[in-house]
Amino acid sequence: MIQRPRGTRDFGPAEMAKRRKVEQAMRDACARFGFGEVVTPTFEHSELFTLRSGQSIVDEMYVFRDKGDREMALRPEITASVIRFYISDMSMHPKPLKLFYVGNCFRYENPQSGRYREFFQLGAELIGTKTPETDAEVVALAISCLRGAGLEDFLVRIGHIGILKSLVRKEIKDEVVAAEALRMIDKEDWDSLGDMFDAKALPRKLFDKITSIADIKGSVDELNNLEDSEPTAHLREIFDTLRLYGIDDCQVDLGIVRGLDYYTGMVFEIDAPRLGAEKQVLGGGSYTLSELFGGEPVFSTGFAIGIDRVLLALEKERPIDVRAPLDAYVIPAKDDMRKYAFGIVARLRSQGLKADVDLMRRTLSKNLKYAFSAGARFAVIVGKEEMAKRSVTLRDMKTGKQEVVQADEIGKTILRSPDS
Amino acid sequence: MIQRPRGTRDFGPAEMAKRRKVEQAMRDACARFGFGEVVTPTFEHSELFTLRSGQSIVDEMYVFRDKGDREMALRPEITASVIRFYISDMSMHPKPLKLFYVGNCFRYENPQSGRYREFFQLGAELIGTKTPETDAEVVALAISCLRGAGLEDFLVRIGHIGILKSLVRKEIKDEVVAAEALRMIDKEDWDSLGDMFDAKALPRKLFDKITSIADIKGSVDELNNLEDSEPTAHLREIFDTLRLYGIDDCQVDLGIVRGLDYYTGMVFEIDAPRLGAEKQVLGGGSYTLSELFGGEPVFSTGFAIGIDRVLLALEKERPIDVRAPLDAYVIPAKDDMRKYAFGIVARLRSQGLKADVDLMRRTLSKNLKYAFSAGARFAVIVGKEEMAKRSVTLRDMKTGKQEVVQADEIGKTILRSPDS
Repeated sequence: MIQRPRGTRDFGPAEMAKRRKVEQAMRDACARFGFGEVVTPTFEHSELFTLRSGQSIVDEMYVFRDKGDREMALRPEITASVIRFYISDMSMHPKPLKLFYVGNCFRYENPQSGRYREFFQLGAELIGTKTPETDAEVVALAISCLRGAGLEDFLVRIGHIGILKSLVRKEIKDEVVAAEALRMIDKEDWDSLGDMFDAKALPRKLFDKITSIADIKGSVDELNNLEDSEPTAHLREIFDTLRLYGIDDCQVDLGIVRGLDYYTGMVFEIDAPRLGAEKQVLGGGSYTLSELFGGEPVFSTGFAIGIDRVLLALEKERPIDVRAPLDAYVIPAKDDMRKYAFGIVARLRSQGLKADVDLMRRTLSKNLKYAFSAGARFAVIVGKEEMAKRSVTLRDMKTGKQEVVQADEIGKTILRSPDS
Repeated sequence: MIQRPRGTRDFGPAEMAKRRKVEQAMRDACARFGFGEVVTPTFEHSELFTLRSGQSIVDEMYVFRDKGDREMALRPEITASVIRFYISDMSMHPKPLKLFYVGNCFRYENPQSGRYREFFQLGAELIGTKTPETDAEVVALAISCLRGAGLEDFLVRIGHIGILKSLVRKEIKDEVVAAEALRMIDKEDWDSLGDMFDAKALPRKLFDKITSIADIKGSVDELNNLEDSEPTAHLREIFDTLRLYGIDDCQVDLGIVRGLDYYTGMVFEIDAPRLGAEKQVLGGGSYTLSELFGGEPVFSTGFAIGIDRVLLALEKERPIDVRAPLDAYVIPAKDDMRKYAFGIVARLRSQGLKADVDLMRRTLSKNLKYAFSAGARFAVIVGKEEMAKRSVTLRDMKTGKQEVVQADEIGKTILRSPDS
């Protein structure tokens, strides 16, 4: 028996109904915010991803050579592709440009809970502007996506890469040492940072200041503990704009130090605490990337949502409710009624109902059993008498209640019933 | 500048709006027929595809070794994956099982019009039954997908692999020669078939019979030219059932000889004649595949639609009509009105409208230009006087007509306008 590849998944109809519902809710949020969908190829020249994320990503990528001996990679993320697409085809479009994507990504890692080798992301990129309201707009969209999906228990933490970055650049004159310090801050590796401060005889006061800034978390008023600067003013304006959107439960977190080389300003993360250790469902921030790929510089702000994690988080809150897979299953009681039954199922479908009909010429009782296991809301039973009167027996599969209904009234009756 | 990989595509918002509309219409058709969606991994053990399609497919596949040195392939088609999934997880489910998928496939070939290295398919598989009404159901779904997508000009041709197969197996006793003959018929390589008939001294009458059968095309009555057999009776019943569904414009075509080793009974193809040489938009038929992958034998009928070709065909008929990307673009006339504007855009979005707001602090005239180029139906202009009266100026971007509207009436006014 051929197995599916390790670390990948198959999704059946019950699972897909939930996933499509959640995905659609997030798509709708993007559309309401004026974001338009883009789709880029599943594989790219691998250089695109190493330019953005550094050589370290190579170990996690699925890389292959195509028959022209070019090195390709299955995409580990989609932002790089969107910016490549922007440079080649959209750089002359009026700004801002609001784009979103839904797609699969690939990462070669050991399978574990909530981490897969093929996983799904929804992301948004707002290109061409860098005002505080731009960042607020992107955070507001992220929140709308999660709320739209039905998630209630999540925490939004917003920071700004510039505060620690400008401090380090100002206080450590040796550029090599400063860059090394930033790398350690990025990894939250305070031990190594302390060791380096000792080795280079850097002031202990600076070390304490760095760790105390990284420790600022909570209400936006926590920023009052810092001297005023362009980044703190920018952060305050983001929180002000979010309040105009009716969003007032975000926290400041200056400890967010996602890829310091890549992000340029605001950074944010959203956690679903019920997920435990793997609780982060979203990460984002403002960045510049296009120069790296050979385009003109342009400011962008974006995020990526881990759709798989959002689904796990939703199910921790409550079961995801989806429509019944079938409204009606039509059963000819005998062979003579078969043709009549096909006419009925065709009519129900033309009315937009999800309808099916016996294709296996089974007995009434076997068909009723099948209707039940297929999750049909109603069985539409066609007997000899019913056929003669152009009627059917409509059986509610949940309650077992039956009623005789005229053939041309079946659709209406089903649409009137509570679950429609 | 980094290029996108050769033979792949990027899709922007205008194109994606069309693609999603067409895809959604086809998904809706599948749901109405009681088909449930499945999603399988983008890459599989390459053996899965060579078992189904033979070694010849290797040259067209993107193959790579994962870090465990297992040979993987980007999927060239999805049916094999669905059947693998069926065997491992769904073989005990009540039959029939009705599954559909929408996904990307990969084929390493020279890029040309309508053929891409990454392309998109929607397919359906009806598993566990082999009655004529099963085959009719699948053909009817295929037609519903295309009609639902808006396609009008297409031709459905239905054949039966069994007619030529049983004839060849009966008349050519040497199994090796019979298999070779079937392969030539599959390729419609009548010259080689004729040569082999000469070389093996097979009767010219048989050759003529084979080519005349392959030439039977047109109304179902064309079957009257053949002696009765189980396959012809089966084909007639398919056409009878289709008529019960209100479908009476399908043709018989016994020249359809898609993969003789793979299909077992009914085979069908749909062409969109306006596409010219690459006119086939769909292919399908009944098959058994699960034994090949190590499962119990099971009858299936399915098809795959080339979504890219359907889109090309639709655009040859008429432009695909999509909703405006933005209902409202909110413009604060001056900085003082910025906060008021953010409250308005938040409210419009909460009413389900697609709304955007100036994020770049631009002038009124620049904002109006942007609203136009972004395709907004209305500009919502907030001046000093309007703000004082809790109102706005609503400007129809198509007609240029303006009216003053109370802030809490904007949503209603837009929803009442003709294009909503």
